[in-house]
Amino acid sequence: MAIVVMKFGGTSVADIGRIRSVARHVKREIDAKNQVAVVVSAMAGHTNQLVAWVREASLIHDAREYDAVVASGEQITAGLLAIVLQSMGIPARSWQGWQIPILTDAAHGAARIIDIKADELKARLAQGEVAVVTGFQGLEPKRNRISTLGRGGSDTSAVALAIALGADVCDIYTDVDGVYTTDPRIVPSARRLPRISYEEMLEMASLGSKVLQTRSVELAMVHRMRTRVLSSFTDPEALQPVRSGSEWQNIGTIVCDEEEIVESQVVSGIAYAKDEAKVTIMNVADKPGVAAAIFGPLAEANINVDMIVQNLSADGKYTDVTFTVNASDLPKTLEVLKNAREQIGYSEIKSSADVVKVSVIGVGMRSHAGVAAKMFKALAEKGINILAITTSEIKISVLIDAAYAELAVRTLHTLFGLDKD
Amino acid sequence: MAIVVMKFGGTSVADIGRIRSVARHVKREIDAKNQVAVVVSAMAGHTNQLVAWVREASLIHDAREYDAVVASGEQITAGLLAIVLQSMGIPARSWQGWQIPILTDAAHGAARIIDIKADELKARLAQGEVAVVTGFQGLEPKRNRISTLGRGGSDTSAVALAIALGADVCDIYTDVDGVYTTDPRIVPSARRLPRISYEEMLEMASLGSKVLQTRSVELAMVHRMRTRVLSSFTDPEALQPVRSGSEWQNIGTIVCDEEEIVESQVVSGIAYAKDEAKVTIMNVADKPGVAAAIFGPLAEANINVDMIVQNLSADGKYTDVTFTVNASDLPKTLEVLKNAREQIGYSEIKSSADVVKVSVIGVGMRSHAGVAAKMFKALAEKGINILAITTSEIKISVLIDAAYAELAVRTLHTLFGLDKD
Repeated sequence: MAIVVMKFGGTSVADIGRIRSVARHVKREIDAKNQVAVVVSAMAGHTNQLVAWVREASLIHDAREYDAVVASGEQITAGLLAIVLQSMGIPARSWQGWQIPILTDAAHGAARIIDIKADELKARLAQGEVAVVTGFQGLEPKRNRISTLGRGGSDTSAVALAIALGADVCDIYTDVDGVYTTDPRIVPSARRLPRISYEEMLEMASLGSKVLQTRSVELAMVHRMRTRVLSSFTDPEALQPVRSGSEWQNIGTIVCDEEEIVESQVVSGIAYAKDEAKVTIMNVADKPGVAAAIFGPLAEANINVDMIVQNLSADGKYTDVTFTVNASDLPKTLEVLKNAREQIGYSEIKSSADVVKVSVIGVGMRSHAGVAAKMFKALAEKGINILAITTSEIKISVLIDAAYAELAVRTLHTLFGLDKD
Repeated sequence: MAIVVMKFGGTSVADIGRIRSVARHVKREIDAKNQVAVVVSAMAGHTNQLVAWVREASLIHDAREYDAVVASGEQITAGLLAIVLQSMGIPARSWQGWQIPILTDAAHGAARIIDIKADELKARLAQGEVAVVTGFQGLEPKRNRISTLGRGGSDTSAVALAIALGADVCDIYTDVDGVYTTDPRIVPSARRLPRISYEEMLEMASLGSKVLQTRSVELAMVHRMRTRVLSSFTDPEALQPVRSGSEWQNIGTIVCDEEEIVESQVVSGIAYAKDEAKVTIMNVADKPGVAAAIFGPLAEANINVDMIVQNLSADGKYTDVTFTVNASDLPKTLEVLKNAREQIGYSEIKSSADVVKVSVIGVGMRSHAGVAAKMFKALAEKGINILAITTSEIKISVLIDAAYAELAVRTLHTLFGLDKD
């Protein structure tokens, strides 16, 4: 007997037929005497319609009202799934964020979960009732208003609920069957990873893999909540129910502690992100304070700067500074820099969105030197120019021309032995 | 300065364009320094979609889950209207039933409002903030679940809120411009009634006029809440804002105390209801207890019986009993009677849905005799056969063949001087 949290995203609950399939996944766990809480997203496309209405009402709008409108989508799927489960003879009830409650801060539209009062849920789960919980939303208690966690927030809801319930696992059902060494659409020889460490998954998520939302991985990592990614499109009866302990069917990807991964490779995966833009500020004075003059105003405008490269000054007086921002922030970035021209002092600004960031990720890098050198050499041999580099303990990212993205990913995938046998 | 509750139905909030028009109606009242609470329905068609999903999920379903799903429609319009109002510079916030809260009993799907905790609402209204309230729904406090009041429940929400706020008027904006002496689609010479008494409106509502929901009129009558029916399609700026006291623009229909109606006629309106079905039980024993044998099982099956006629027995031994039920209850009625054949003892059952109930309504009947006689004579002169009759202090209803419905309504409309000049 285990406590299981199962999360189903928008494509997994897109219509009543899909919701019935979700119910069969739940039934498998209930039949195995597991205690089950299900977290659901809105039907695919529904949230987009709600957001479109809000924008049509007013482009500038109260985030609290936005939240009240868009949170309605999950409310619908939660009720519908509860009804389908009941029709299959499984006791179930729907829970909205404010009913549990899932308490959040007041950052409407991107709220953070502060606490989940799970006592009643726990008691009902123990009695065999399935809790169908609306993902993506909570209650801001001071003003008694619905809050939402931002796009992809249902993953975070699921992990947070799993932690509050002391669940054995948080199963994230999605439209892919696990986490891959890289995007299989680009590299057909990409392999599903049976296990991946929290740290690696976090890098993958922040570096462009869309399988899990970054915040949900952070949360799972901090609380050591074992999280599994698997496909809701798998035949529900073909999966084995969750069992307490360490036996796991070789299906999906388990995100877990490094120690639980027996055979780990130096490099676990190659990620790439297309939504980068490069900005170069030409001929700024090469003196203390110039970085503050550039990045201060950007920070104030809430623009995240990722990679930064400062060229060596030829004459000791002037230099060029290159950095990357999210492509959607590029227009705002250029405006901020234009307004700060006097303080910064530069001759010209160049920018391009035709760049991608390719990253090599693996906890094994901690103990294996030479990964970076091997990577740079392989890229050079293919004639790929590196525009910028950032590294952390377990990843190396390079910025390259977008035209070389696929070549780079394939080259590195083979280089680090990730291709399927 | 007045306190005004404004209610807008589904066609009045069908899209963002219509919601903007609603906001202009609200602005007119706010500009006149009135305090405003707005009650909104779901966008037209939206609730039907939600109900269809629930039925697709399971024909037999938990009413609490049904309520959780269908209540989402009002949540959307309330948020959208709040956003539009804010974009016009009017302070506003949306309130869902559970946030106020509007407390109801546990009869999910057809709940009754028990109490509205309106203190915070009152305080915010006094500060000039518009409260945009979801109609049709409330909170069942014992289980902390969303309840709905049943179809048309938003009228009831509006009247109940007006009572809780001590409003000067409850303005019901709809797609017609008031209450008419009869259906203008049938009788083009029908007139808008500037005023109608609660009692008459209640009869009109229960006898087939769909302008106001019966329960909302009952509530308004008990609490003497002045309720006005007017069109949301009228140019918002063409209406005068509400003023405290007795000055009222001659627009819409005011539902109010009999005493407030200066020139009242004997008959105020002609209603007709098409959804009647007639059942005749042939040759039942003419002895005590037979009525109980017939109507007991029907009551147990929750079937409302309206008109009842028992023929005079020719031989003192056997008689026929005729009664009417709602047409949608006819199949169930016939089944119940078939099952009770032994207890009742009858030769045959005849039924027909080709009947209509035509009613003449007016508080003036209390003091004027002869209305019934005049009515029966006029119908007889047109060759219209009366199948059954029921009366109350202020109305006379007759059941006739459906083919004569329009002729009867037109004849009576002219007979009682209701035609336009």
